[in-house]
Amino acid sequence: MNPSEIPQTNQERHVKGLEGVIALNSSICYIDGGKGTLVYRGYAIEDLATHSNFEDVAYLLWHGQLPNPDQQIHGQLASLRSIPEEVLNFLSQLPRHFDPMATLRTGISLLSHYDPESNTSTPESNYQKALRLTAQIPTLITALARHRHGKSPIAPRTTGSTAENFLYMLTGEEPNPTAIKSLDAFLVLHAEHGLNASTFAARVIGATLSDMYSAIIGAVGALKGALHGGANTRVMLMLLELQKSGEAPEEFVMRKLASKERIMGFGHRVYKTLDPRADVLRKMLIELGDQTPDMKLWIDLCSGLSRTMDEQKGIRANVDFYSAPILHLLGIDPDFYTTIFVMGRITGWTAHLLEQWEDNRLIRPRAAYTGPMGLNLSDHQ
Amino acid sequence: MNPSEIPQTNQERHVKGLEGVIALNSSICYIDGGKGTLVYRGYAIEDLATHSNFEDVAYLLWHGQLPNPDQQIHGQLASLRSIPEEVLNFLSQLPRHFDPMATLRTGISLLSHYDPESNTSTPESNYQKALRLTAQIPTLITALARHRHGKSPIAPRTTGSTAENFLYMLTGEEPNPTAIKSLDAFLVLHAEHGLNASTFAARVIGATLSDMYSAIIGAVGALKGALHGGANTRVMLMLLELQKSGEAPEEFVMRKLASKERIMGFGHRVYKTLDPRADVLRKMLIELGDQTPDMKLWIDLCSGLSRTMDEQKGIRANVDFYSAPILHLLGIDPDFYTTIFVMGRITGWTAHLLEQWEDNRLIRPRAAYTGPMGLNLSDHQ
Repeated sequence: MNPSEIPQTNQERHVKGLEGVIALNSSICYIDGGKGTLVYRGYAIEDLATHSNFEDVAYLLWHGQLPNPDQQIHGQLASLRSIPEEVLNFLSQLPRHFDPMATLRTGISLLSHYDPESNTSTPESNYQKALRLTAQIPTLITALARHRHGKSPIAPRTTGSTAENFLYMLTGEEPNPTAIKSLDAFLVLHAEHGLNASTFAARVIGATLSDMYSAIIGAVGALKGALHGGANTRVMLMLLELQKSGEAPEEFVMRKLASKERIMGFGHRVYKTLDPRADVLRKMLIELGDQTPDMKLWIDLCSGLSRTMDEQKGIRANVDFYSAPILHLLGIDPDFYTTIFVMGRITGWTAHLLEQWEDNRLIRPRAAYTGPMGLNLSDHQ
Repeated sequence: MNPSEIPQTNQERHVKGLEGVIALNSSICYIDGGKGTLVYRGYAIEDLATHSNFEDVAYLLWHGQLPNPDQQIHGQLASLRSIPEEVLNFLSQLPRHFDPMATLRTGISLLSHYDPESNTSTPESNYQKALRLTAQIPTLITALARHRHGKSPIAPRTTGSTAENFLYMLTGEEPNPTAIKSLDAFLVLHAEHGLNASTFAARVIGATLSDMYSAIIGAVGALKGALHGGANTRVMLMLLELQKSGEAPEEFVMRKLASKERIMGFGHRVYKTLDPRADVLRKMLIELGDQTPDMKLWIDLCSGLSRTMDEQKGIRANVDFYSAPILHLLGIDPDFYTTIFVMGRITGWTAHLLEQWEDNRLIRPRAAYTGPMGLNLSDHQ
């Protein structure tokens, strides 16, 4: 039988990569790529990044509305930050040369073994797991980041925001308010982005009625892919290369364009005109640069690159372009950037899982068979 | 703005759970649910389960054709079975009361840290990872199964088939030929099943150009879900309950049907008439029962249940119904059954990943936004 003769049902439609196919309803995130609009639960991202904070945005994503003052979860998250000694012990045995995302994936998988509710599937227990994962992932990341440099982990504090405590656990020093504000805005901007590949992976796994850990580990694995996370790491490597070479950013752009090489951090698969998150971070970078003399260099590099790209190609810088120098300034190694993305996106992933389980249905498209038919073993042997 | 006013593009079509939507082409597996047909790469499953073996079927799934005698991979797989001491050490530290699938997920994630090629993405290195995972997963599972009972792991042999070596590592004793043949057939029957939820999860993760470990870990997490794997565990618990109570299988069925309770192991989401895998296993069960006196009980129970269900409802037993007593007879704990499913399906998952990466495209459907619009923080505060 030829593939064309293989019976397929009438209603089937073949859409490669499922582009444009609507798989489900969601009330979490609205994106208009043409207009450059990103909305969480009705609120524009610029509004949230400027006037709210990561913990309130997490609450918004999970509950569908912003918390009243007595509903705020800052204290609750702060109280859940510790991770079991056994997990820290295991991480400390890892060879120093590890892949941060693979190790974060293992770390989250390990956490599940010490969570007595890991397989409990009530809405309340799943919400508690969302809180715990959001609280514990920064502790995992900083333990890994310090282990990389031969340093032992710093225990989390039970006070302070997620951003503040992360920077404290990373360095052991009191972070400055601008650094805290920048990381907080980064987390808000990366908290959610509709049905991207990692969120979709989480919902596909969750829809089998598997547990939250399994779904989040799948999402971490998807975000690890070069077509998904990791763009700001590549931006930073480009900026560091440019800094080292001393080449003027305008010349760098012209040279790359002439040789048809890709310049990292420009354009976006979804946002065709502008990435609404980029502008928030650009302003933040300038603010951060005002307070730290060595930041002026990065601002000048970024300005030169983005101005030249805009003039030459009419392509605007995206969120990754500006987040790279900000994370660099916060003292985070470039190959850890995607883990900081996870630290924000864990809230969106878990919000999508809570939504999935409210009205669950298995997510299972079909494949069109294009292989041979009618073979048998007696012919072969 | 009401949800109905939110602009959506014209081409969009909403298909809940993506049922019937074709997401991709694949030449690996053909299923005709109406006719009860399951075909791997052109060969009917009955033919493969009866006249081939797990290693040759793995080769078939990966390469698209059966191996010639000099292409057989039995020896290659046998040479790759050892797992690093560090991974075994970690598993031995786990509390005895663990979830086998969650632990297998962690175990595979741990293996990646000791694979110098874990992030290498050439076709050859991915094929080597498929071989290694297929060879190492049985070693992981038997180490876990023995740890559960306070026993230390048994090192794999570098000879013998996957099924033979698994049974040896599980018990430390020489398995009998019928037991080996039954497990081998189980592995062949479970090696592949089209774009089911776990395989789809693996391809969604792999399509971001993430690594094979991340994709397989996502698939293990999906198979862990109650709507996907685990049905034969529930069949066995039912059979054990029936054995304990001494109730006649006919009475059991009538009582369950009268109270509208579900009877495990009957009917199938895809196979509307018969599950082609069930018949192969039914015959195998009878063969196995002939050699082991205490098996007669299970055969009688299964026969009674399936005859009554067929008479009363016209519903046939599925693959899980017959695989449960077979795995029980092989000495495997019921809550480990889904890990044995992984031991077979790892070949199908990795075949799908190799195929995905031959002509990759991000898999990313859309969500229809149903939430509020136009909110702002100044209204809230």
